[in-house]
Amino acid sequence: MVRIAFFGPEGTFTEQAARNLAGGDQLFPVETIPAAFDAVRSGAAEGACVPVENSVEGPVTATLDSAVDGDPLVGVAEALLPIRFSVLTRADAPDPPRTVASHPHALAQVRGWLGEHLPGAEQRVASSTAGAAVGVLEGQYDAAVVAPVAAEHYPLRVLATDVADLADARTRFLLLRRPGPLPEPTGSDRTSIVVAAANRTGSLAGLLAELAMRGINLTRLDARPVKGDYGTYRFFFDFEGHVAEPRIADALAALRRRSTEVRFLGSHPRADGVAATLEAGAGNDDFAAADAWVEAVRKGELA
Amino acid sequence: MVRIAFFGPEGTFTEQAARNLAGGDQLFPVETIPAAFDAVRSGAAEGACVPVENSVEGPVTATLDSAVDGDPLVGVAEALLPIRFSVLTRADAPDPPRTVASHPHALAQVRGWLGEHLPGAEQRVASSTAGAAVGVLEGQYDAAVVAPVAAEHYPLRVLATDVADLADARTRFLLLRRPGPLPEPTGSDRTSIVVAAANRTGSLAGLLAELAMRGINLTRLDARPVKGDYGTYRFFFDFEGHVAEPRIADALAALRRRSTEVRFLGSHPRADGVAATLEAGAGNDDFAAADAWVEAVRKGELA
Repeated sequence: MVRIAFFGPEGTFTEQAARNLAGGDQLFPVETIPAAFDAVRSGAAEGACVPVENSVEGPVTATLDSAVDGDPLVGVAEALLPIRFSVLTRADAPDPPRTVASHPHALAQVRGWLGEHLPGAEQRVASSTAGAAVGVLEGQYDAAVVAPVAAEHYPLRVLATDVADLADARTRFLLLRRPGPLPEPTGSDRTSIVVAAANRTGSLAGLLAELAMRGINLTRLDARPVKGDYGTYRFFFDFEGHVAEPRIADALAALRRRSTEVRFLGSHPRADGVAATLEAGAGNDDFAAADAWVEAVRKGELA
Repeated sequence: MVRIAFFGPEGTFTEQAARNLAGGDQLFPVETIPAAFDAVRSGAAEGACVPVENSVEGPVTATLDSAVDGDPLVGVAEALLPIRFSVLTRADAPDPPRTVASHPHALAQVRGWLGEHLPGAEQRVASSTAGAAVGVLEGQYDAAVVAPVAAEHYPLRVLATDVADLADARTRFLLLRRPGPLPEPTGSDRTSIVVAAANRTGSLAGLLAELAMRGINLTRLDARPVKGDYGTYRFFFDFEGHVAEPRIADALAALRRRSTEVRFLGSHPRADGVAATLEAGAGNDDFAAADAWVEAVRKGELA
């Protein structure tokens, strides 16, 4: 039985993503994002499901930091969930509810809806959306803003569904494993790395130029401060393509040469199915033909 | 009397930064970071003090987003505070305290200290460090992890000072004003802009190359998702130099040509006093001499 740890508790968007990604695998919640990584590193789980990026809040910094601290893990699949909340109450709670609780990020994403539909409810901060549901069950709050899957875990009344101020807010989740055979390239893939750039003029521009020169489209860049070293950063790059493709392999080798520290974080199919852009001269055949020409030049067969 | 709004409540690191930056100006707290920006935009204040970056947690996303939403404001000064906490208790609280509260970011930065010195204390989440101090006063918690300045506002006992897991954690704060005369260049300046890059291969690399080619050292880059437009980003750049210098003016003009949206966020002295690196050929005289040469070529006087 394959065991997948997910950033819990049960009843959150991460559990929903883990269900989408894990097929028939056995899921179990862990308390923190670092604990999900550690479960895979220690062998307690074969995989872990964690959020990596939200279209409103930006990167999930605990996930980025956990990818750097400790043995390398690689992303093998991703899920993209629309972030639309449900609002749950106890059957015996005041109507309308006097208090409504959730994780601060969730409250931030439904601020407009709450102002319109529950203007009199005092907003309370809970440690997670599911933790807010538990608080409602226990009588601590009257209502909770939660992931839809929470309604399956907690015997609460559904006051509203599809609640979101921004119609297309989304969170992307990763399924992580220990390094091993990679997913096959599909033509719609994402490759992720983290790079430490030297602290000198033009170093980041040089790294990005290695991608741009090979026609590789960057899809995300996040800088994270290196803890204990003020003013220095690591850069997380996501870009189109799969390391099995020559242009990606060639770019990774160049980044490896140019930086003090590079870690491969995975090549896997994109959840949104967007096909990689491919510039003239950057295809697999172009790389093979160019390599063959250089080889022939070296042998004195061509010029 | 010049009025400076700061992201409150009173007794936080932001108040400490505002005191350092405001001289004899009148300070008043506002509830949120967007409210601090709005106070200046509306004319309720002449300036605002907000945090922009922490060396452990990274960028303060509410500050970045507020800089884009609404009329432009510019940073005219910055303060860099070491983040070392004090722990306060009520005189009649249990010893050792059974509960300790703070903002989640503060708790994260003293996790090791709490584990060592208050291992039995349950950790509670408060809306701010100063809010935790109020909770201690009101008997809701036994102890609070706060900014040192909080001890001046709340009649609580100081249990510990200089509390920090990482010795050199720092937060940088900005003093913002409406656009107007800029601070004079000092040779140790920081310029900040936000740029929307086109969503195509190499666009960010091209923007950074404009800086690198002119020998301009990037000190920070943050990507923020554009709300409601999944997969598109704005980039916040901080770099060495002052827009009064030709190499910076030249680079800003190039960025303006290459991007759909650029906003100038200020040129002001760096709090850490680090002198700008200046590559050969990038000095003010070099730019003046090169411009003079091109002008002479245009007139047919030189070749």
